[in-house]
Amino acid sequence: MSAGVAGDSHLEQHPERAAVAALTDSFLSGLREWIAIPSIGVDPDHHDDVRRSAEWLAGRLRRDGWPQVEVWDHGPALPAVFACWPAADPQAPTVLVYGHHDVQPVDPIERWHHPPFEPVISGDELFGRGASDDKGQVAMHLLGMRAHLAATGQNAPSVTVKLFVEGEEESGSPHLRKLLETHKKDLECDLVVFTDTALHDRETPTVNTGQRGVLAGEITFFGGTDDVHSGRAGGAIPNPATALARLIAALHDDTGRIQLAGFYDDVREPSAEEREDYAALPFDERKWLAHNAGGAQAASGEPGYTTLERIWVRPTAEVNGISGGYTGPGFKTVIPASATAKVSFRLVPDQLPEKVADQLREFVAEHTPHGVRAEVSFRGEGVPPYAISPDDPANAAVKEAVELAFGGPVRFARAGGSGPAAVLQAWLGVPLVYLGATLPDDRVHAPNERVVVPLLLKGAEAAAHLWRMLARADIAKRLTP
Amino acid sequence: MSAGVAGDSHLEQHPERAAVAALTDSFLSGLREWIAIPSIGVDPDHHDDVRRSAEWLAGRLRRDGWPQVEVWDHGPALPAVFACWPAADPQAPTVLVYGHHDVQPVDPIERWHHPPFEPVISGDELFGRGASDDKGQVAMHLLGMRAHLAATGQNAPSVTVKLFVEGEEESGSPHLRKLLETHKKDLECDLVVFTDTALHDRETPTVNTGQRGVLAGEITFFGGTDDVHSGRAGGAIPNPATALARLIAALHDDTGRIQLAGFYDDVREPSAEEREDYAALPFDERKWLAHNAGGAQAASGEPGYTTLERIWVRPTAEVNGISGGYTGPGFKTVIPASATAKVSFRLVPDQLPEKVADQLREFVAEHTPHGVRAEVSFRGEGVPPYAISPDDPANAAVKEAVELAFGGPVRFARAGGSGPAAVLQAWLGVPLVYLGATLPDDRVHAPNERVVVPLLLKGAEAAAHLWRMLARADIAKRLTP
Repeated sequence: MSAGVAGDSHLEQHPERAAVAALTDSFLSGLREWIAIPSIGVDPDHHDDVRRSAEWLAGRLRRDGWPQVEVWDHGPALPAVFACWPAADPQAPTVLVYGHHDVQPVDPIERWHHPPFEPVISGDELFGRGASDDKGQVAMHLLGMRAHLAATGQNAPSVTVKLFVEGEEESGSPHLRKLLETHKKDLECDLVVFTDTALHDRETPTVNTGQRGVLAGEITFFGGTDDVHSGRAGGAIPNPATALARLIAALHDDTGRIQLAGFYDDVREPSAEEREDYAALPFDERKWLAHNAGGAQAASGEPGYTTLERIWVRPTAEVNGISGGYTGPGFKTVIPASATAKVSFRLVPDQLPEKVADQLREFVAEHTPHGVRAEVSFRGEGVPPYAISPDDPANAAVKEAVELAFGGPVRFARAGGSGPAAVLQAWLGVPLVYLGATLPDDRVHAPNERVVVPLLLKGAEAAAHLWRMLARADIAKRLTP
Repeated sequence: MSAGVAGDSHLEQHPERAAVAALTDSFLSGLREWIAIPSIGVDPDHHDDVRRSAEWLAGRLRRDGWPQVEVWDHGPALPAVFACWPAADPQAPTVLVYGHHDVQPVDPIERWHHPPFEPVISGDELFGRGASDDKGQVAMHLLGMRAHLAATGQNAPSVTVKLFVEGEEESGSPHLRKLLETHKKDLECDLVVFTDTALHDRETPTVNTGQRGVLAGEITFFGGTDDVHSGRAGGAIPNPATALARLIAALHDDTGRIQLAGFYDDVREPSAEEREDYAALPFDERKWLAHNAGGAQAASGEPGYTTLERIWVRPTAEVNGISGGYTGPGFKTVIPASATAKVSFRLVPDQLPEKVADQLREFVAEHTPHGVRAEVSFRGEGVPPYAISPDDPANAAVKEAVELAFGGPVRFARAGGSGPAAVLQAWLGVPLVYLGATLPDDRVHAPNERVVVPLLLKGAEAAAHLWRMLARADIAKRLTP
């Protein structure tokens, strides 16, 4: 369990590191207990487990000394946990740490090497569902707080730390806005620290500065009322599957540029410095294809952008599923009565999901041929994109904390996925920074999810540094103007 | 049961009509017995019924006096029935009547108003599976032979009539070539009369002159080995579903012209006279859409051709089914590992299925993007198209026979579907003509299949006329040069 951990000579300069080391066994035994609770939020059969998971976390926080701990279980949301540990100095800024304790389903179960809810440590990895996403990172913050208090010798943190751990993230956080509304007062803060993102790789600590948004929609083209034998009408009526294919083909031009009218109007280009940071990150395309891209045979995308830029700072339009007509074994020469495509758009600042939804509706209307009727629907309101400037003082503090914990220069990066960060940021009206210590190849949402323990320990140390640094006058002044 | 039947004043001029009228009750009771046997060839549970159906037909033929009757049940084909009634004049031409006695499955059974194998007569319609396709038309030929003998007072027909009724047409006639090979000698003839096509409508008798061919294929595009979350790789790897949609979109240009290289090279345009005949046929687009085109909302297709021409004399490329990625309820923002389309081409003379298969393979290769692997497969060898000239003397005799039986001018038409006509014609090396008396809206392959009895009776009369006319020196000389 030594990968990348700096030598003991640093222990004296960094009392946080010594504190983390002393608390590691207790941290690991707690995390393993928590992972053993199968809090699969999307499965109603496991809703009691989500409740048990929330209670476990609340109990742990109380044992750790958090003065205010609540389980919010008043529906319709699955139980969330809230805790607050006020700073000794009432003028100190307030930080809200966001995480989630619900986990993904485990299918296909037969591909797990160990039972997903019987966590196992092997080498420096801890295996189990939720080890990385997101119980490991929430536990990391509990450890960070204990290390912060131990290192500073205080009985209260340097800044007020609030913890908000929801139970519906894997379900798309359907009641997050409602929770934020109900608990507006509780959740007031000067800064959000978002825990649900990863480092670039094991050797390259990074600080995340943003996530893409997402808008998922479904387009159905209807032709007749029944599939019709192509010998009877083939060539003489519109084929909804062909029409849908033509619509999808028209979504991109030949260079891969998305053709919704106005789609790129609000796209903010990354700064030259950000692009330099991304270019400086180690990137092995072959490994990325194998481990991060489902075994894809080649990288390809919008010209003029690298693979990382295509994932992090460029918007996309992807077909997630398509169906229509006869899809069983063998052949049935019918003209389908209808065809459906699920499409999703990853969005980047400052695109708005609702605007893209309108653009798609208009695009579908323009590409619906005579004799075909179109229906378009969306998954909720979509998730907005979010990014914080690398120059933001809170973000600079995160970078410094991560550099202290991990050693070496830390670069900024982004995440290609989507999460509730933008919703939190918009509702709470404060900056949001990212502090994550997991890895892109942790197999989250897949069999054999794992977390690399030494990275979590460094993440905890970084959190401990961060609470100390955020109280520094220069940063605190910016956070609480 | 009088729709369209000409008045009794014609009975004297047409002794065939009187003979048909006298035999109608016997004909109907026999046909009802036969329909009651559920000879669903595609369902192995009904293979004994296919056998019973063959035996029923053989028994009936023997009772009708056919001197040679055989059930060919030597595998691998399901039982076929062969019968031969030699002409008194050994110089007379030999005619082979083709039909089939297997029937389609009955799903969805709940949409039948009467049990499909308990035939019911209502008004002038006989309801039941196989009433139209194809037991009704085979029975029509048995009646035609009895009427021919009764009308001519002979105890042998004017031409040698052979009957070949296969048991696998609804399965795509997989062993037809084998049967033709095994029974080459038995099946030798000067003309094939194909019974498995329809009249234009109840009031408009037509003689069919051709059927389209068909080639059905499946194209699969493979990207990675697993579906991958679009937040991880979206925008940076090829999406097989998008690539497949782009291939399908490229199959037609904006006017609907098919883009396989060389696809139209062998397409024979219909003659001006044929197009005039088609244009003269009554055609109610609204009714056609509702009853023949699965309730399609509008007709559309290749510019410069009418709907009937698009179905009869123009080749098509249709998507029959498409699937890929997540197609269940809700959303899953994945990039699919693969996507599949089933496509079929209806072909017209003189296109060859094997040539179009090569054209498609080449087209797929050209439209497979970097990072995607393609697989293409086909359903067997495809079915070639077939057409006979309206000027062919045998075809002229059919037209005359149909005009005598149905009264009024008869026009030539074609069929948009595909059948074994071209295989029979090519193997036997003789002309093939069509004699059918069913209707396009008989709901063949669908619930509530029916046949219009007075039309079958006229068809039987037309067959009786035809056997007499084919013995005429001018036609016989052309048939047996």
